[in-house]
Amino acid sequence: MVKVGIVGASGYTGGELLRILAGHREVEIACVTSRAHADKPVHRVHPNLRDVLDLTFEDIPYERVAERCDFVFCATPHGASMEIVPKLLEHGTRVVDLSGDFRFADVAVYERYYGRKHVAPGIRATYGLPEIHREEIKRAKLVANPGCYPTAIILGLVPLLKAGVIDSTRIVADAKSGISGAGNKPKETTHFPNAAESVLAYKMTTHQHLPEIEQELQRFSSEARVSFVPHIVPVIRGLTATLHCFLTRSMSPEEVRQLYQEYYREEPFVRVLDIGEVPRLSAVRGSNFIDIGGFAVDEERGRVIVIAAIDNLVKGASGQAVQNMNIMLGFSEEEGLGSIAIHP
Amino acid sequence: MVKVGIVGASGYTGGELLRILAGHREVEIACVTSRAHADKPVHRVHPNLRDVLDLTFEDIPYERVAERCDFVFCATPHGASMEIVPKLLEHGTRVVDLSGDFRFADVAVYERYYGRKHVAPGIRATYGLPEIHREEIKRAKLVANPGCYPTAIILGLVPLLKAGVIDSTRIVADAKSGISGAGNKPKETTHFPNAAESVLAYKMTTHQHLPEIEQELQRFSSEARVSFVPHIVPVIRGLTATLHCFLTRSMSPEEVRQLYQEYYREEPFVRVLDIGEVPRLSAVRGSNFIDIGGFAVDEERGRVIVIAAIDNLVKGASGQAVQNMNIMLGFSEEEGLGSIAIHP
Amino acid sequence: MVKVGIVGASGYTGGELLRILAGHREVEIACVTSRAHADKPVHRVHPNLRDVLDLTFEDIPYERVAERCDFVFCATPHGASMEIVPKLLEHGTRVVDLSGDFRFADVAVYERYYGRKHVAPGIRATYGLPEIHREEIKRAKLVANPGCYPTAIILGLVPLLKAGVIDSTRIVADAKSGISGAGNKPKETTHFPNAAESVLAYKMTTHQHLPEIEQELQRFSSEARVSFVPHIVPVIRGLTATLHCFLTRSMSPEEVRQLYQEYYREEPFVRVLDIGEVPRLSAVRGSNFIDIGGFAVDEERGRVIVIAAIDNLVKGASGQAVQNMNIMLGFSEEEGLGSIAIHP
Amino acid sequence: MVKVGIVGASGYTGGELLRILAGHREVEIACVTSRAHADKPVHRVHPNLRDVLDLTFEDIPYERVAERCDFVFCATPHGASMEIVPKLLEHGTRVVDLSGDFRFADVAVYERYYGRKHVAPGIRATYGLPEIHREEIKRAKLVANPGCYPTAIILGLVPLLKAGVIDSTRIVADAKSGISGAGNKPKETTHFPNAAESVLAYKMTTHQHLPEIEQELQRFSSEARVSFVPHIVPVIRGLTATLHCFLTRSMSPEEVRQLYQEYYREEPFVRVLDIGEVPRLSAVRGSNFIDIGGFAVDEERGRVIVIAAIDNLVKGASGQAVQNMNIMLGFSEEEGLGSIAIHP
Repeated sequence: MVKVGIVGASGYTGGELLRILAGHREVEIACVTSRAHADKPVHRVHPNLRDVLDLTFEDIPYERVAERCDFVFCATPHGASMEIVPKLLEHGTRVVDLSGDFRFADVAVYERYYGRKHVAPGIRATYGLPEIHREEIKRAKLVANPGCYPTAIILGLVPLLKAGVIDSTRIVADAKSGISGAGNKPKETTHFPNAAESVLAYKMTTHQHLPEIEQELQRFSSEARVSFVPHIVPVIRGLTATLHCFLTRSMSPEEVRQLYQEYYREEPFVRVLDIGEVPRLSAVRGSNFIDIGGFAVDEERGRVIVIAAIDNLVKGASGQAVQNMNIMLGFSEEEGLGSIAIHP
Repeated sequence: MVKVGIVGASGYTGGELLRILAGHREVEIACVTSRAHADKPVHRVHPNLRDVLDLTFEDIPYERVAERCDFVFCATPHGASMEIVPKLLEHGTRVVDLSGDFRFADVAVYERYYGRKHVAPGIRATYGLPEIHREEIKRAKLVANPGCYPTAIILGLVPLLKAGVIDSTRIVADAKSGISGAGNKPKETTHFPNAAESVLAYKMTTHQHLPEIEQELQRFSSEARVSFVPHIVPVIRGLTATLHCFLTRSMSPEEVRQLYQEYYREEPFVRVLDIGEVPRLSAVRGSNFIDIGGFAVDEERGRVIVIAAIDNLVKGASGQAVQNMNIMLGFSEEEGLGSIAIHP
Repeated sequence: MVKVGIVGASGYTGGELLRILAGHREVEIACVTSRAHADKPVHRVHPNLRDVLDLTFEDIPYERVAERCDFVFCATPHGASMEIVPKLLEHGTRVVDLSGDFRFADVAVYERYYGRKHVAPGIRATYGLPEIHREEIKRAKLVANPGCYPTAIILGLVPLLKAGVIDSTRIVADAKSGISGAGNKPKETTHFPNAAESVLAYKMTTHQHLPEIEQELQRFSSEARVSFVPHIVPVIRGLTATLHCFLTRSMSPEEVRQLYQEYYREEPFVRVLDIGEVPRLSAVRGSNFIDIGGFAVDEERGRVIVIAAIDNLVKGASGQAVQNMNIMLGFSEEEGLGSIAIHP
Repeated sequence: MVKVGIVGASGYTGGELLRILAGHREVEIACVTSRAHADKPVHRVHPNLRDVLDLTFEDIPYERVAERCDFVFCATPHGASMEIVPKLLEHGTRVVDLSGDFRFADVAVYERYYGRKHVAPGIRATYGLPEIHREEIKRAKLVANPGCYPTAIILGLVPLLKAGVIDSTRIVADAKSGISGAGNKPKETTHFPNAAESVLAYKMTTHQHLPEIEQELQRFSSEARVSFVPHIVPVIRGLTATLHCFLTRSMSPEEVRQLYQEYYREEPFVRVLDIGEVPRLSAVRGSNFIDIGGFAVDEERGRVIVIAAIDNLVKGASGQAVQNMNIMLGFSEEEGLGSIAIHP
């Protein structure tokens, strides 16, 4: 059994890591840290884990975490991870970091979009989207787990971009996220009377996930540019991206779908829907699948619509993190990730 | 007092007409029809009207409606209106029709998108968007009240199109509607366990509001083309459109906002928000305002984002219908439309 | 025009007072105070009021408020009101206080349930439930506006208690409140991912509204005792109380309903539903009505069920406050309170 | 591997059975029937099962089901089960029936509350609440799976009743259910604009689960009588019951909790919360646990409040059905039921 630790285990992604790892047959959870909840049993914060996991949050130095664990998930906020990860790596511990701190090849991009100086600019990570970087992930010491929006948007666009059939300079990604994506700290936008019966666009041109999306898409089409607008919708979990693209040549819906089918044929967590089917959040809620569908073509306007849906806390965060760990440690990629979505 | 009738008064738009007209000082509600609910008091169907309006649904021939009313709202479904409206007009009754039946200059477009033959192709109506057609509405015998999506999208785009500063062939309108927009008949997509915790794109390239949007926008830019995708979100009332446009020249957010300010300076029901403010549904819920904001410019990608929000049942339907009646009958345009939105 | 002020106008009840008073023909809003939002226009906090009210929050001493206003609403939190109200009364200003500070005849009860010492124990107020205390309200200098739960529960029980047909020692009031009742400050229980898809009982035996309910009910039956349990449900606005009572004699549903009909015959804001009808929140959302229905009798178990529903921010707070002001100032009791509920 | 069948597999409880059985290591799903969806793959109806279960709905005679299966779940509606179950039993197939058809020892009670004649009055079933009837379940040919409300209410009351510390004639069970409890057929009360932002009491004295609750509770206290009122709240899944009881002797919260701890000490699916903790739906959503907490004592009024929460589709239906099958077939009682709840 591999000993794994979770740093920052009291947040939503920490809770999801615990839920998933509780059923993982190759690892043992050796250490869960939380400054705010030190010495509390995990079920005080994650009530679903009562009588499921008998663990207690600890507030211990990262060196101790590294000593006790073979593998660590950093579920810490942006800015905290870049302080912690180097200390873990020094001990030879392999790490999946769920923050944005190590997602960028170019530190300057990070500093511009996250508005802070990077304290560990020399550390290189592998971008943890297995469908694109599986081989590098296998060998990586540090994997930067993708953001929730990028996961849905990148996977929803790659087959079209790779095939070179859309105008890559005019891609519109209009995304809608459940509110758990904002974390577990109450704020004005997450206050129920504000968030219910509401749809709210935010950071319309400045969201920190935009450069991450373009960085990855530009591997497939160098001039890829995305008009990305995120929205908060009154949903707890789930994220859907509506991808509006302009075709550079005439294609039928079947041909579009075929591109996805082929590209994702071997992927265990990508489901390509039938023509006319639209992904539903209940089909992915609690599971590590990404569903991709839509494939609607409007010949008159030369456009194609693709829709991608994930659970923002699973394929958009903790599920993907475990998928990355599985790849890094040579386990079956699906180990621990068998939860079926909760529908309805 | 002008005597008004409502044909099809048991639906959501019928209920909203009643709520609004109950406070209108120039009209008397002379007749409310419903086949399914004949002889019931209106509050059996619209429980908010108990002790407010003492009216009973009737199931009577349209000729009788025309005799008893000076003015009629047809809140009947698509397909029904085209049978009823001609009979009302014959009697000299002026009509606002809330269905899609008379919104198109070209009957062939109607027949294509609504999938049925038009039985009254010779009857011409004025498209009832007061901010664009106020002068014609004054004289109209028949006003075709706009759809909810077109109201938000057209008003959200006209100032940019008119100024000629965007690529009018590549407009993306990603819209999110509350579920009351689907009417009061239960169906699978409106079943709470399906609709809650969900975001659902539908009719991604074929929605019947698409040609209506383009018909009106092409008055301002002849080659206007819109990539319109509607979504259902778990909200009762309210509709928001995120308008992704590509600028043809560099503009600041202030310049963009200025276009809207100037265009809508005299409009009683259009509120132009400040830079950085994003429309919220609670600010329009139950009121006839449209809020337009966003005005975010992304210079690097040459794009601008504008967001428009309405209550789909008020400015998107019954409120606008009363606004049209007020214009047609020479009343103050705001009469009866003073309800302040319910926030939170 | 009477000049009215609102102290603490940036909260939800402050916003509702503004929404209601904007349409009140006998008063002018002379002063709105907020410490946190001083110098901002009210629509920055209450976005529904944009272009409706041209007012700015001020942070001024209460003496100045008293000088500028003939009448003041204190929409301040528990504990703050008892500091402010005496200063306002000293200037001869009449006041409706929306907090719990002056609702108790016995200060010791206040101190026990609110966990703080009362600093103005000598000041007497009239309990502002017009359906019970209308005559005293007319003459009152200070009206203590009832809590939301007490409004629904007291009005839902009085006819049964007064008729002496139920066991007054074994009344169960199981109440469900929308989340706006918790105010506009984000907290853990109001965080959308916690509050949505949830039902949460709280303060099951210790809620501060319990003694208020019993104080008023004991006017009708001296040994009245209520098993009151409040719950938070995923609703923005609206409060419903299910009142489980045990009959001391056999009664038909019609007889039960008759008690309510008679008791509330003259009341402008109480609607007694028909047998078998159950109050719906959409029938009161945004309006000052209380709907009372249910009237289900279970002869075998000797029980009767009555259900009462209000909008917690209107009849449960600001609407009732304006109703009280109307009575105090001799206006029509319904002035300003004509908003029809928003259904659906 | 035991071959199991599901009759009526297209409803919500059918879908949950499939979700649970997909991970069950002792059974093979041999047959899933649906008249309406015959020949469709199951994922067309249950989108969460795409790429998880490769099964197709069949419309075949019950004899064929019995031939192909060793064990059958009837997830058919009330009224249908009593036609089907006898045919299955004739073939020696053991059955768990999820409808209400076989829950009553006294057929007359069934006929009164379900409003239909029973066509198989001679067939006896064991009431499938394992915490009470485990021994009989082991030997049963037919288990009648409990209703969702009875599961929460009975388990929430038994320790108090058994201890004889409450007035068993004056128990109030005020229950709130998520809307999936109404099934997957759209109806007026489940239409999103009606169901959202709403709390609705229904069948206040006549719900068909009432006699089921009393039948079981009377095993512990012969004169047990429950004032049961069910409500629909805007939640997809989850059911909570607030149990208001009147103590016949003074007890501390600790003593109350102790009764539950002792009674459920060995139970794998009952979690007894700490004093002051209140069950949350997210702690049981998707899992087979029942959480029981509250344990609030109000000495002055001689009352105690207990709260029980379940996922209505799991412990309230399909999870409990699998738990019953596990007991009947001698498997580990927890087999297949390890899904951890989805929080948030």
